[in-house]
Amino acid sequence: MLLKEGGCALTAGLKAESFADLVPLLERLAAFGADDRGGVTRLLYTRPWLDAQTFLEGRMRAAGLKTRFDRAGNLYGRLPGSLPGAPVVLTGSHIDTVRSGGRYDGAYGVAAGLLALEKLKRSCGTPLRTLEVVSLCEEEGSRFPLACWGSGNVAGVYRLEDGAGVADADGVLLAEAMAAAGFGRAAQPDCRRSDLGAYVELHIEQGIVLERTGHRIGLVETIVGQKRFALTVKGASNHAGTTPMAMRADALAGAAEMAAALEARALAAGDPLVATVGRLEVRPNTPNVIPGEVRLTLDVRHDRGAELERFCRETLELFAAIAARRGLSLEAQVWHQTHPTPMHAGLTELIAGVCRGMNLPARRMASGAGHDAQLFAPLCPTALLFVPSRDGISHSPEEYTSPEHLAEGAAVLAACLYELAYREEWPL
Amino acid sequence: MLLKEGGCALTAGLKAESFADLVPLLERLAAFGADDRGGVTRLLYTRPWLDAQTFLEGRMRAAGLKTRFDRAGNLYGRLPGSLPGAPVVLTGSHIDTVRSGGRYDGAYGVAAGLLALEKLKRSCGTPLRTLEVVSLCEEEGSRFPLACWGSGNVAGVYRLEDGAGVADADGVLLAEAMAAAGFGRAAQPDCRRSDLGAYVELHIEQGIVLERTGHRIGLVETIVGQKRFALTVKGASNHAGTTPMAMRADALAGAAEMAAALEARALAAGDPLVATVGRLEVRPNTPNVIPGEVRLTLDVRHDRGAELERFCRETLELFAAIAARRGLSLEAQVWHQTHPTPMHAGLTELIAGVCRGMNLPARRMASGAGHDAQLFAPLCPTALLFVPSRDGISHSPEEYTSPEHLAEGAAVLAACLYELAYREEWPL
Repeated sequence: MLLKEGGCALTAGLKAESFADLVPLLERLAAFGADDRGGVTRLLYTRPWLDAQTFLEGRMRAAGLKTRFDRAGNLYGRLPGSLPGAPVVLTGSHIDTVRSGGRYDGAYGVAAGLLALEKLKRSCGTPLRTLEVVSLCEEEGSRFPLACWGSGNVAGVYRLEDGAGVADADGVLLAEAMAAAGFGRAAQPDCRRSDLGAYVELHIEQGIVLERTGHRIGLVETIVGQKRFALTVKGASNHAGTTPMAMRADALAGAAEMAAALEARALAAGDPLVATVGRLEVRPNTPNVIPGEVRLTLDVRHDRGAELERFCRETLELFAAIAARRGLSLEAQVWHQTHPTPMHAGLTELIAGVCRGMNLPARRMASGAGHDAQLFAPLCPTALLFVPSRDGISHSPEEYTSPEHLAEGAAVLAACLYELAYREEWPL
Repeated sequence: MLLKEGGCALTAGLKAESFADLVPLLERLAAFGADDRGGVTRLLYTRPWLDAQTFLEGRMRAAGLKTRFDRAGNLYGRLPGSLPGAPVVLTGSHIDTVRSGGRYDGAYGVAAGLLALEKLKRSCGTPLRTLEVVSLCEEEGSRFPLACWGSGNVAGVYRLEDGAGVADADGVLLAEAMAAAGFGRAAQPDCRRSDLGAYVELHIEQGIVLERTGHRIGLVETIVGQKRFALTVKGASNHAGTTPMAMRADALAGAAEMAAALEARALAAGDPLVATVGRLEVRPNTPNVIPGEVRLTLDVRHDRGAELERFCRETLELFAAIAARRGLSLEAQVWHQTHPTPMHAGLTELIAGVCRGMNLPARRMASGAGHDAQLFAPLCPTALLFVPSRDGISHSPEEYTSPEHLAEGAAVLAACLYELAYREEWPL
């Protein structure tokens, strides 16, 4: 494999053991927005978020990287290459969190990218192609009702002007918050990129597959497509004591039959399809009253668009039949939809080679969660790799990946960046 | 039948047509505690409640009844009989409401009883046995977490001292509220009664059975027993996108299977068993997160105690098996329980005879809801009769019974009271 040919990446100590400074950096980052539940809350453009970005900027400079913020607040650290006009090799992830989230989701990819560039610079010197690490300003959509604001602006899916029409729960406009944090100024670099040769994102899995199967690295082939529905089931709210079973139009009994049918159909469809009722609310929600209305959400994901559509269509037909048989009404509305996004096969195969060279068992898989990589995929060859998440828990203070697994992922990333930036021949 | 023998009840104009003043009286009563949603809110010992009781006291006096409040605030109107030492014949219901309730639940039985006594006095003169109508102070338990405070004090199930340990949502003690309304004084008559020969309660059905079957009067044979459980189903909250279907411990999928199984078992058991999941709450209740915990309530009712127990036991065993198969935990706690209460067969048969005499189709049935009659049943022969409720709706501003149905119920009540109070022979 590539690494056996030599190169300085492994010979110069870019192995997993070299990333002992990764956990301390993640701990330092977790202090920004730390809450008393052990979680981290860094919402876009808030003080803890700005402090974390500013800290990272200093840390990038200390690593010898040239830094800049773009107009949206994405922070870049740059290690210029010697080859004029060559495509830029970019790694990174996002710095924002959900409310009381963990210390790895997003931050891991930024910290590992920063340290990988630092070590590559120190061990291998100036690359042929420019290397950059990015701390994207926002992915979670946890302050404003819009996700991937950072990568979306890089990709041109969003424009900064879109921030004028979006408010947080307190009514603060995204545009206002951006300006207050010091961004959105004409003097700052534009967000759009057209100079990228590759984007590689390292992330925790946020799932239990790698842990259960004993793989150390997940190689994402496709980020699944998603369809989310808001369903309203309406029946007749009546007295739970005086209404015989046969005379009821119980919205919750209907919703329960739907949820059970959904699970059975999803199990029958098999991986990677997943389908979830995550939210369910009952009205009037009183012990001695037959529920008259239930609102529930349906989240369906699949790595093939046609299968996703078919599953959703047939499921809603089944739900409509259940409602009709029970004398209930059913309304269904799609409120979120993304298409499956394949990662770059050649780049993913390059990383598979790196893993084989390091004797790290790697698993090809779909990503059931959305990631910034989704936004970069139309711009340039893009790869997404995972390390295991303990118990699959994320978006929680309980989120955890062992130092060994974190370091292995960083070493794979560093070796991959070496292959992309230091080899004479562009490998993709 | 009894009525064919004559008596003044029918001959003197105590037919349904004579109760044209019933709806105006109910309208007048509904003004006390009227809210802007068209509902009525008369919580125990509040100003609207006290105003309504005071209004009724005046109305009873105008009808020629002797009035008194007992120590708890139950209001009696008395038409003394001529037979010394004879048992008292009591009718009535309660004056309190749920929040934004209807104008018939409780109030109907009080108003109809008052008018029945007024018309009997006017048409038939002094009864042999004393007739009383009672406006019980509280049945709903909607201000304080305790139901049937009025009838419970009459029956000795509660003592006034119990009011010292019960507070409303604002922290006001029942004892304080009672004192502020002018009750609980030693000079006021004791609540306990040991002089009752019969209690007859007229109420709206609060169900859809009479409407669906076309009967005009419901003759309650038993007030069902109830068992209510609080269940907690716990699984593992995980990412809805990254957790394959086969690796989930979805608390909501488990709860849905339980709710569906409950409904199927209840339908199979048949009337009068009813079983309801009225309240269900999901945690974390987020569209893209697999539910880790579901709390739900189970309300089961039956007119036979042994059947009720068996159904609950077998259902919980089934739920435990569902939880175990899915890797979920299940906790179940009984938080409310009443035993089935049979009404008096002889008194109910007397009323059935009245209905036949009036050509009103009557249906023997169980009451799925609790009523004050439950508290009187251990004291004296007790009967509970229903008139239809439109669409079965109650505890809502939408609660409605037509003037015809209301008047028919009142006429049946008046005739029944005649049989009990004016006949030489005590019929029970």
